[in-house]
Amino acid sequence: MSNINHSQDAKDRYFMMLAIEQAKLGLYSTRPNPAVGCVIVQAEEVVGQGFHPKVGQPHAEVFALKDAGIRAVGATAYVTLEPCSHTGRTPPCAKALIESGVIRVVVAGLDPNPQVAGRGVRLLEQAGIEVTVGILTAQAEVLNKGFLKAMRTQMPYVRLKIATSLDGRTAMATGESKWITGPAAREDVQKLRAQSGAIITGSETVIVDNPQLNVRSSQLGIAPEQVPHPKVVILDRRERLQYNLQSDYQLCRRTDILYWRDDNLTELLKVLVSEYQCYDVLIEAGASVAGSFLQQQLVDELIVYQAPCLLGQQARSMVDINPLSLAQQLRFDIKRYEQLGSDMKLTLMPV
Amino acid sequence: MSNINHSQDAKDRYFMMLAIEQAKLGLYSTRPNPAVGCVIVQAEEVVGQGFHPKVGQPHAEVFALKDAGIRAVGATAYVTLEPCSHTGRTPPCAKALIESGVIRVVVAGLDPNPQVAGRGVRLLEQAGIEVTVGILTAQAEVLNKGFLKAMRTQMPYVRLKIATSLDGRTAMATGESKWITGPAAREDVQKLRAQSGAIITGSETVIVDNPQLNVRSSQLGIAPEQVPHPKVVILDRRERLQYNLQSDYQLCRRTDILYWRDDNLTELLKVLVSEYQCYDVLIEAGASVAGSFLQQQLVDELIVYQAPCLLGQQARSMVDINPLSLAQQLRFDIKRYEQLGSDMKLTLMPV
Repeated sequence: MSNINHSQDAKDRYFMMLAIEQAKLGLYSTRPNPAVGCVIVQAEEVVGQGFHPKVGQPHAEVFALKDAGIRAVGATAYVTLEPCSHTGRTPPCAKALIESGVIRVVVAGLDPNPQVAGRGVRLLEQAGIEVTVGILTAQAEVLNKGFLKAMRTQMPYVRLKIATSLDGRTAMATGESKWITGPAAREDVQKLRAQSGAIITGSETVIVDNPQLNVRSSQLGIAPEQVPHPKVVILDRRERLQYNLQSDYQLCRRTDILYWRDDNLTELLKVLVSEYQCYDVLIEAGASVAGSFLQQQLVDELIVYQAPCLLGQQARSMVDINPLSLAQQLRFDIKRYEQLGSDMKLTLMPV
Repeated sequence: MSNINHSQDAKDRYFMMLAIEQAKLGLYSTRPNPAVGCVIVQAEEVVGQGFHPKVGQPHAEVFALKDAGIRAVGATAYVTLEPCSHTGRTPPCAKALIESGVIRVVVAGLDPNPQVAGRGVRLLEQAGIEVTVGILTAQAEVLNKGFLKAMRTQMPYVRLKIATSLDGRTAMATGESKWITGPAAREDVQKLRAQSGAIITGSETVIVDNPQLNVRSSQLGIAPEQVPHPKVVILDRRERLQYNLQSDYQLCRRTDILYWRDDNLTELLKVLVSEYQCYDVLIEAGASVAGSFLQQQLVDELIVYQAPCLLGQQARSMVDINPLSLAQQLRFDIKRYEQLGSDMKLTLMPV
C-alpha cells in the first residue's frame, strides 16, 4: 500500500468514527430500524452530519446531506451502514446521495437486509460514485447486533442478564434479592432494556418479584418516553398467570404482553423476529429459564453483574443446569470486564 | 513546598522505586525475614544496589554499600525498610551506613519490629546523617504485608484462595475438580504459595484431592529449591488423618506437618506467628474451612480465581456459610482485577 493510500485509510477511519458517534445518538430510539450515522466531508472538513432518530423519520444520509447543503457537491459521505436502495417509509438514500453531488461514499458494512444487500452500493457505482466498503466494520456492527443477525439468520441476538453474588447466588433462600447489586449496575440494566426489542421473563419471576421490566432511566441521553417500549414475553408453560390473576401483577396489566405457553423456545425467538420485528432480545428471568436458553444454545451474550459478596450455599443458584461432569460444563469467553460502582460487569460469549 | 523540594521529592520517589524493584528480587526467598532493597545514589546516579536474599545472609544495605564502595561517601541511601539497629544474625545496618560515609538516608517506612521501631533512624540521626522517612511507604509495605502485620499485631496476614466457576462452584458433585481454572491461574497460585510462611488446608481436602501443596514452579525468577518450604497445617478436628492413614497421602508423608485438632483458629494463627515465624498464611481448603475463617473474620484478603464456566446447581459451593438474610451477607471491596489466560483473578478485602 502506498503512503498516500495509507494516509487516506487513516482519514477514512477517523471520519467513520465520527459517523459511528452520530449513529450512537439513535441507539435507544431507532428500533426496529438499525442505528445509522453519516458525516459529509469536504476537503477534510466535516460539512454535514446526521443520524437516523426513529422509525418513520428520514435516514442518517438525508439529515447529513441537508446539513451540508451545497457543500455536499464534490464531497465524501461516510455512512455506518450501506445506504438503502428501496423505497420504504422513506425514499432510497442511495438516490439522495447521487442527487446531492457527492463523488465518493465510504460505507462501514453492507446491509444484509434482503431489500438492500449490495444494491445500494451498486446504484451508487452505476451513477459513477466511488464506493469504499469495509472501514471500521466491526465497530459499526456492534451498534446493530440484533438487526444484522436477524437479517442474516431470521433469529434475534439474545442477551441473558444475571445479577449474582461472588458465589453465584441471585437471591436468598427466602427469595429476598433486593438488592444484591448496586445502583450503577441497575442503571446499566436500563441501557440493556433500552436496546432491546423484547424482554423475556418467566411466570415465576413475575409472581415472586412483581417486576415492571420497563425503561425508566433518565440517564440514556434521551427521555425514556422516546425509547420504544420493549415487548414483554412471559414464559408461562404451566399457565400460572391465568386471566383472572393477571391484574395482581403490575407487568401483566399491560395490554401488549405475549404469554408463551409452548416448550419451543427457538420457535418463540423466530416469532419475535418474523411477527414482531424484535431483533435484540433480553432475558431477565430466574435460574430455570436462564438454564433452558443456555442449554439449548440460544444465548449470544451472557451479561453477569457480580456483586462482591457471599450469600452462602442455601441461597438460590444463578442457573439451573446439571452437567454430570466437568466435560459437560458450559464454557464462555470473557469479552469485557467493567467495574460499575462496587460491582463487576462481565460480558461473556458462549464458546 | 518550594520547587526545589518538589523536585527532590520526585527524585526520592524515583530512586525508592528502584529500591523496591531490588526488594522484589528477594520476595520468594527471604522468609521469615522481610524483603528489603537498597540503592545508593551519588550525584543522581545509582552507584550501588542490593537486596536481602535470605535468612543468614547480609541485609540489602550491606550489599548495596559493598557495590558502591568508595562512591558511597557523600551519597544518599534509599532503603525500603528502616535499617536495623540491633545485632542479630548480622551486625546492625544503621552502623554500616554510618561507617560508609553516606550523608542522607531515605526510608520508605519504619520497621515495626520491636527490636528496631525507630531506633535505626535515631542511630543515623545521632551520627549526623539526614534521614527522610515516608517515601512510597504503601508500595514498599505491599511486599511485606505478613511481616508488618505480625510485628504490629502478633497475627499473620491471611490470604484465602478459592478457584471457582462463574456460578461459584469449586467442584462437581462427584468431587471432580481437575481443572476448573487454566494453567495461568494455577501458575499464579504458585506465587501465592511461594510468598507464604504456611499453607492451611483441611483433612477433607487432603483425603479427596491428595494435594502436594508445594512450590514447584520454574517461573518465580528463582529456582523452587531457593524458596523456603511453606509449613503445611492440616485442620483435622475429627482426627480423620490418624497416624496409620498418613502414609496414604503424599502431603502427609512430609515430617514437618502441623496437625491442628483444636477448634480455635485464632489460636492457630497466633501459634503460627509466635512458634513458627509464619507471617503470611495461605488457606487452600474446601468450603467448610473457608467459611469458618471468613465468618470468624480471620481473612485479610480473598483471592478468587474465576473460570468463565457454569457447573450447575448440583456442583459444590465455594463457601459454607448460611446468612439468613441479605443483611447478613459477607461483603468485600474489589481491590484488583486481572485476566489470567481465560480466567479472572479477583483480589478482595472483607468490608
